Amino acid sequence: MEAISSFKDLTAHLVDAKQRKRIAVANAVDSHTLEAVLMAVDEGIVEAYLIGDVAEIEAFDLYEKPEILEYVHVIDCPEVQEATLEAVRMVKQGEADILMKGLVNTDVILRAILDKEKGLLPPGNVLTYNAALEIPNYHKLLFFSDPAVIPYPNIDQRKAMIKYAINTCYKFGIKQPKIALIHATEKANPKIMFMQDYLDILQSWRSGEFGDVILDGPLDIFLALDTERGSIKHVPTPVLGDSDVLIFPDFSSANAFYKGLALFAGAEMGGILQGTEKPCVLTSRSDSTTSKFCSIAIACILA
Amino acid sequence: MEAISSFKDLTAHLVDAKQRKRIAVANAVDSHTLEAVLMAVDEGIVEAYLIGDVAEIEAFDLYEKPEILEYVHVIDCPEVQEATLEAVRMVKQGEADILMKGLVNTDVILRAILDKEKGLLPPGNVLTYNAALEIPNYHKLLFFSDPAVIPYPNIDQRKAMIKYAINTCYKFGIKQPKIALIHATEKANPKIMFMQDYLDILQSWRSGEFGDVILDGPLDIFLALDTERGSIKHVPTPVLGDSDVLIFPDFSSANAFYKGLALFAGAEMGGILQGTEKPCVLTSRSDSTTSKFCSIAIACILA
Repeated sequence: MEAISSFKDLTAHLVDAKQRKRIAVANAVDSHTLEAVLMAVDEGIVEAYLIGDVAEIEAFDLYEKPEILEYVHVIDCPEVQEATLEAVRMVKQGEADILMKGLVNTDVILRAILDKEKGLLPPGNVLTYNAALEIPNYHKLLFFSDPAVIPYPNIDQRKAMIKYAINTCYKFGIKQPKIALIHATEKANPKIMFMQDYLDILQSWRSGEFGDVILDGPLDIFLALDTERGSIKHVPTPVLGDSDVLIFPDFSSANAFYKGLALFAGAEMGGILQGTEKPCVLTSRSDSTTSKFCSIAIACILA
Repeated sequence: MEAISSFKDLTAHLVDAKQRKRIAVANAVDSHTLEAVLMAVDEGIVEAYLIGDVAEIEAFDLYEKPEILEYVHVIDCPEVQEATLEAVRMVKQGEADILMKGLVNTDVILRAILDKEKGLLPPGNVLTYNAALEIPNYHKLLFFSDPAVIPYPNIDQRKAMIKYAINTCYKFGIKQPKIALIHATEKANPKIMFMQDYLDILQSWRSGEFGDVILDGPLDIFLALDTERGSIKHVPTPVLGDSDVLIFPDFSSANAFYKGLALFAGAEMGGILQGTEKPCVLTSRSDSTTSKFCSIAIACILA
């Protein structure tokens, strides 16, 4: 398998596989979510279970393309909380492969996912968020963690993040992923928050903890993503200008980075929760339909 | 005065003022620094004191434009440390208006600036970094703090940052600057680092501590910089999509934000130290010549 290096590649790969993944959408009543899901049904990559108020769901042009209707199932569940629990139950009990958030507050669906008995997080797993960014002028997809879930990761959470990202890279056909631990500077001053964790993680990598990957840090964005600007610094690093994965020190760094590029560099992002039994798509209201579609596609390849 | 909304505007404004500021360049022996300084001399905005090894300085095409030579003075000082101290001394004693770092390690020049007796930081002042970013597709210059100097600001440092940024905005002719306190989310959870400081700062703003400015936070990048994406969130904020200043939670967020935009959105940045008696230009090796020129221009308007 050749490495998937764009969202277009990813969709083509999934279409070729001719295998629809079943997606359960909690309170599927907002147009952006429905558009993205129906796009994925139309591409032949998912079979959709739309859970919510039937009247609200059918107010959308669900029936514009009759040929896809056999892959769209509407489950009447007018109450948001109930629709959310039903979607989680379907995934938990193997009736669906992917969970997706519709018009539900994030804390409501997270509570359902985190429920010890009926939820989707196995004990000991770390719940985090991994996303892929397609930036015009970067030569491949860029995975990164965590813009949303863990504000200030401790070292165990960070190691889990790295392992989930590596697993995702393998699923995308990247043979030896290059991982950059990002900070404001490449000078490893242990007095600065997270620097000591980075040094310890580097040591763990050298001992083989992460398997066949290349890892370095602390590195700044120039070193991680740009050969020319990075070279000026004369900091030798095996990931120079060619990172597959960026691990950010904290969620505000990851968040500011991707939102800046979404606004001003035409970057598209797709992302999913990591650590759960099955992929969970938790996009936010301000994400575009394309972004929601990309998230579904990532969930499909991981499901 | 109309507000300056681009680096081109800024240069035009300085050229119109017909007032050369005197700039002392510590160890002025690298080509990027010299190019930027000579460009500023050529534009008529500075008179340059190039301190360093005469032979090294003269190896560059200093004399290509004989008409500017009366504004370029070479001071022979072959030793880096000595050249740095001499540049700081000139600024301290009023022989120059602006300090600029040439080929000097940042810690060496910072030590000279921070020297209690001979340095440039008045007691009680906070040393921080403020930069202006010109992003294609953003409608004006965007000032932000702090990508480089204070890793994790406490509330007093943050208030100082805000005040320096406001002062800079006034110098740029911005009448009522709009300031966004940036975080990963607009939900003010005081358990998350810096959120309580943001709430306290908002309170101080309401009590008039920052004067005639508009301030809000926590806000994410979408709310601060994009009316459309920001509106989807239905979070009412008076800075929506029109911020003049972004105050980032920590230096890694500010750093990742601007470096991403420099690489992939064609953004140009200029920046200077704040808190010092006189403006100090401390660009880094990986900054472009344009970026160094923009930094000099910002120093000129503040000098």
